[in-house]
Amino acid sequence: MSGNRFGTLFQYHTWGESHGVAIGVVVDGVPPRIPLSEADIQTYLDQRKPGQSRFTTQRQEADQVQILSGVFEGMTTGTPISLMIQNTDHRSKDYKEIKDKFRPGHADYTYHEKYGIRDYRGGGRASARETACRVAAGAIARKVLETQIEQSVSVRGAVVQVGPHTINPKNWNWDHVGENPFWSPDPEATKLWTEFLDERRKAGSSVGAVVEIHASGVPVGLGAPVYDKLDADIAKAMMSINATKAVEIGSGFEAVALGGEENADEIRSVEGEAEFQSNNAGGILGGISSGQDIVVRVAFKPTSSILTPRKTIDISGQETDIITKGRHDPCVGLRGTPVCEAMMACVLADHWLRYKAQCL
Amino acid sequence: MSGNRFGTLFQYHTWGESHGVAIGVVVDGVPPRIPLSEADIQTYLDQRKPGQSRFTTQRQEADQVQILSGVFEGMTTGTPISLMIQNTDHRSKDYKEIKDKFRPGHADYTYHEKYGIRDYRGGGRASARETACRVAAGAIARKVLETQIEQSVSVRGAVVQVGPHTINPKNWNWDHVGENPFWSPDPEATKLWTEFLDERRKAGSSVGAVVEIHASGVPVGLGAPVYDKLDADIAKAMMSINATKAVEIGSGFEAVALGGEENADEIRSVEGEAEFQSNNAGGILGGISSGQDIVVRVAFKPTSSILTPRKTIDISGQETDIITKGRHDPCVGLRGTPVCEAMMACVLADHWLRYKAQCL
Amino acid sequence: MSGNRFGTLFQYHTWGESHGVAIGVVVDGVPPRIPLSEADIQTYLDQRKPGQSRFTTQRQEADQVQILSGVFEGMTTGTPISLMIQNTDHRSKDYKEIKDKFRPGHADYTYHEKYGIRDYRGGGRASARETACRVAAGAIARKVLETQIEQSVSVRGAVVQVGPHTINPKNWNWDHVGENPFWSPDPEATKLWTEFLDERRKAGSSVGAVVEIHASGVPVGLGAPVYDKLDADIAKAMMSINATKAVEIGSGFEAVALGGEENADEIRSVEGEAEFQSNNAGGILGGISSGQDIVVRVAFKPTSSILTPRKTIDISGQETDIITKGRHDPCVGLRGTPVCEAMMACVLADHWLRYKAQCL
Amino acid sequence: MSGNRFGTLFQYHTWGESHGVAIGVVVDGVPPRIPLSEADIQTYLDQRKPGQSRFTTQRQEADQVQILSGVFEGMTTGTPISLMIQNTDHRSKDYKEIKDKFRPGHADYTYHEKYGIRDYRGGGRASARETACRVAAGAIARKVLETQIEQSVSVRGAVVQVGPHTINPKNWNWDHVGENPFWSPDPEATKLWTEFLDERRKAGSSVGAVVEIHASGVPVGLGAPVYDKLDADIAKAMMSINATKAVEIGSGFEAVALGGEENADEIRSVEGEAEFQSNNAGGILGGISSGQDIVVRVAFKPTSSILTPRKTIDISGQETDIITKGRHDPCVGLRGTPVCEAMMACVLADHWLRYKAQCL
Repeated sequence: MSGNRFGTLFQYHTWGESHGVAIGVVVDGVPPRIPLSEADIQTYLDQRKPGQSRFTTQRQEADQVQILSGVFEGMTTGTPISLMIQNTDHRSKDYKEIKDKFRPGHADYTYHEKYGIRDYRGGGRASARETACRVAAGAIARKVLETQIEQSVSVRGAVVQVGPHTINPKNWNWDHVGENPFWSPDPEATKLWTEFLDERRKAGSSVGAVVEIHASGVPVGLGAPVYDKLDADIAKAMMSINATKAVEIGSGFEAVALGGEENADEIRSVEGEAEFQSNNAGGILGGISSGQDIVVRVAFKPTSSILTPRKTIDISGQETDIITKGRHDPCVGLRGTPVCEAMMACVLADHWLRYKAQCL
Repeated sequence: MSGNRFGTLFQYHTWGESHGVAIGVVVDGVPPRIPLSEADIQTYLDQRKPGQSRFTTQRQEADQVQILSGVFEGMTTGTPISLMIQNTDHRSKDYKEIKDKFRPGHADYTYHEKYGIRDYRGGGRASARETACRVAAGAIARKVLETQIEQSVSVRGAVVQVGPHTINPKNWNWDHVGENPFWSPDPEATKLWTEFLDERRKAGSSVGAVVEIHASGVPVGLGAPVYDKLDADIAKAMMSINATKAVEIGSGFEAVALGGEENADEIRSVEGEAEFQSNNAGGILGGISSGQDIVVRVAFKPTSSILTPRKTIDISGQETDIITKGRHDPCVGLRGTPVCEAMMACVLADHWLRYKAQCL
Repeated sequence: MSGNRFGTLFQYHTWGESHGVAIGVVVDGVPPRIPLSEADIQTYLDQRKPGQSRFTTQRQEADQVQILSGVFEGMTTGTPISLMIQNTDHRSKDYKEIKDKFRPGHADYTYHEKYGIRDYRGGGRASARETACRVAAGAIARKVLETQIEQSVSVRGAVVQVGPHTINPKNWNWDHVGENPFWSPDPEATKLWTEFLDERRKAGSSVGAVVEIHASGVPVGLGAPVYDKLDADIAKAMMSINATKAVEIGSGFEAVALGGEENADEIRSVEGEAEFQSNNAGGILGGISSGQDIVVRVAFKPTSSILTPRKTIDISGQETDIITKGRHDPCVGLRGTPVCEAMMACVLADHWLRYKAQCL
Repeated sequence: MSGNRFGTLFQYHTWGESHGVAIGVVVDGVPPRIPLSEADIQTYLDQRKPGQSRFTTQRQEADQVQILSGVFEGMTTGTPISLMIQNTDHRSKDYKEIKDKFRPGHADYTYHEKYGIRDYRGGGRASARETACRVAAGAIARKVLETQIEQSVSVRGAVVQVGPHTINPKNWNWDHVGENPFWSPDPEATKLWTEFLDERRKAGSSVGAVVEIHASGVPVGLGAPVYDKLDADIAKAMMSINATKAVEIGSGFEAVALGGEENADEIRSVEGEAEFQSNNAGGILGGISSGQDIVVRVAFKPTSSILTPRKTIDISGQETDIITKGRHDPCVGLRGTPVCEAMMACVLADHWLRYKAQCL
């Protein structure tokens, strides 16, 4: 109810501010007897960790996760798994000078108006630092999918657009994604984006990005119509990530211009199994997974913290200007990829348990 | 948990199938002493009602709502408000011949696989008929907003794209919206769409649409970060509607190509109040309403029930063809407008009560 | 959140007032493909139905249940099951004269203060008539237990005390329970109670009762520690029933005077299975079912509607007297038995689904 | 859903095992701008802390609470408040010898059967150590009541029975409660219990207790009928505490033997305000607080860990005997008092926020 929890049966509750002592997450509802170590989680946290290239914030965070409960002799026990990550590099002084000003594009104004108080240091609770907790929870969600579902479920993401520059789908290469700082699946795009982002970064500006997530091997039957449709829950999950402004499933906005005969995916039978002839649906029909790949695209707005001065007001209502110094990602969408993946894994793990409860 | 409920404090639970005895909704958490009559709800149901032009299904439903509880001497009592709508024109025989076939683009296959049983008549629970319950709940949500919030909150929608044809924003006229069968705000577009849809309908085809919703007068402070952000809850609400494939807030996908200095809305002070200089954010910052108009666009896919034969399989796995006769909207997105409005009203009413609980 | 729902995975939402058009319940989360008819539910409603002996209210209600959704060709479909019961014999005029007075022991005063409005007719939403919905939901819960659990689960109840008169446990005879109007398991007690209740009824007074529920065949493992312990959920379920004032599990209050060596149930091994040597725990250890019989006792206060004049005030704060005419049970606890049974069945069905989700 | 959370609007989520690194609780939904320090919480933790007399376990725990988030410059911010308590004195070796045996009266058997794995050290998650988190959450709940409600709300408890020995209500003295190790309100009882408990402790046995909680100054109107009645939520809260077996509100089981004319509390008018002439209802009518004192009694069973050998089986199903050495409270109910108080405060804070949302 408080807005800091996600999920229903596989669920987690996050806490912590950008510049507090620590951030953390309590992951609950996890089935017992699943092997789980800190290393299993750290792998994914390291993918999201800042400071790894010149295209992400230079804040240096070890982001070392610690398991405080719920795991005994290397196995989950079915009790709450409490994870904590210490905040180590929090230069709060960077924020002193802006503590009374509302940064355009940020949550400063709305937090101030809603709560009448805000931890202004690094955005406090509104900081994208909170997404580390999502990634940690996502790592456990993956373990749930891996151990509970017979077939292999994979959740992978890539950046398909940076600023106005899209990839060429024909060049798609999953192997390339891990080899460049942009999560780009297209080596051609990687080159272009390097130049483009360097230029924007030097200009003190920022850009947006589109992340595309693919979930393969998802069993047919996940999703609880009509309000907790799988796509509805995915949309909520993605739109809860900092800086996201849009989400589409399958052919998304492009479906609008299609005729019904082009859009509805035909079905053939292969060895007695349904085989769809296209995937405009993005793997979901009537809010329930169809067994096809689930395909989702998420739009991230450009980072709002930029070096160009911007007009704003302060907490007393006076007009002023602001430059957000700090250390910021020129394209926050890049590091959004592991976060989107994590959210997808959490949604799937949650709906898997819901499916078990009612239908198995 | 079962997926048939929406909301947390202002909440409702719907039930019923397309061709059952009736459909209904229990609306709960409504504050006491709000004047409420069946006419207050009927007004909105009549907007959504089919059979009003040649561009919607010819199914004739009175869609007469009945209040069964929760209202005493014309006022809400704070107890559950049970609403029921009888199903009158349900020609189940239309569906007999397709009871064993999976209609492409529909939920037939996934319901069958998930539940092992389905009420095939008119799509059963997966029918867009369920959205009448949303509209009824939305009418009550509007009453909550109207009586609880000092300033006037308005929730309005229009269709801004049909097939490939978009409106011209310069022609936007709210008064025109109620005067044409397309919810079009642009008289020029109305002419074009009339021709276009007639052509598609005669061709036995269908098209998609984009609905845009504006909520004005929303108080600052609604939305519960970080997982129940106002935009996250709106995204879920919209993506839970039948046939939706995408949702965007404010500048949405277009924000990706902007620079941070273009996208982040600057703030000036007018009589001590914040006044934003643009609205790329779509009225929401950090998941909390900023007081600006909330602007959301929702993509509806083309109606999947068309007269063109489509390849599919039946429940025994045999390949076959299917033509969906029945009576169908050539553009299901049109009637989506009052439904999107209703969902927006419900999200706002819910977050208003949540705001009261924590912050007032 | 609104207080009209029960359960988490097996859940239901009730609506309706004592003297409105109808009352009803939406039961949701039910697994698909369970055979279900109106007769399956009616059987239990008939047990609770008033007017069957001189010891219950003379209000004549057919209490005929109608299934409006969620069942197709005799089987549950996994979608919401909407049940409705018309109110037929509601003599609202009986209540006109007391509409401005607060009946002692009733919810009149607190509803008035909380909501500022109340449907005074027969207690409105606070009427015990609402328990018909619980019994209907319980009938479906029993179907879930019956079809989902391999071993046979039985949920049975009996009245073990009326006023100051307790049964003799040595006389316990389950067969006798169905053969007398008191749900008495002890033929000796039945005789005594007949005399005692006739005397109290003629005196215009009323008495309380204790109901004892036994659930046998419950699998080991149900209950979600630490806050949704099986006994915690049972306690809440029972204390939500009208007129209940206390609940105990196993040896309950008597356990206080025992030593740890008397109270803790020893365990032996019979064919490799645990066999407890006593059942002070009442079938629950650490909030989880142990496989022993679950034993619960629930105290019902005496009916507050009596023919003796009582001091009270009216809604303007004036002192006055009141006699509650109407038609009332002299011992509301008697008809509490099928209601307590129903609540137990619902708790078990809910925790069974929760167990499946996490542990199977 | 996972059973480790409590509350709806004022809510908390606990984690941690008796002999893990730490235990903790995330308290959420707290209104912003409430002054809060670690000292505010520590006061209550110190009341519950073990090792303070020879009548509680000799385990030495500093139980020092640390606030990790949600408080900024001494004030709550409306974001999650994460509290952590390190485990310092956990002699796990005490438990090695019993790791394969099921202690009678404990949760060992049921956890093992439910989860197939258990942290056997000190009862793991099932340990009463978890109640420290409840007390910490309760301290914050008290702050909510103190700052949000105009009138002064007090929540106090006392032990009214130890083994078979009850207090004399005529001797009740709240000042005495804080001056003896039994939370006794009756100096006569204190003397008797000292002797009695010394005797039981030396005999290697244990006893139960009854705790009585009084909440004064509670506003009229709290409680959400019909399923989240205030008494239903209190019953659940109390029955979720380790070792509790029964709960009663107001006259509880004694109400059964009363006539309706004795039990229903009459009302008079004092300066225009309702004044009840007795309090058999225990401050709650129809599930809603009436403004009278809320009075609840909770039964704790005798501590199951005793020095007398008991018959049991081990995880392979072999019969064996067990003596529970460790360090244990001879009467676990004594330390139950601050825990019951905390749960009452949490229920009231939660229902206060729910009341605000719907009725203010």
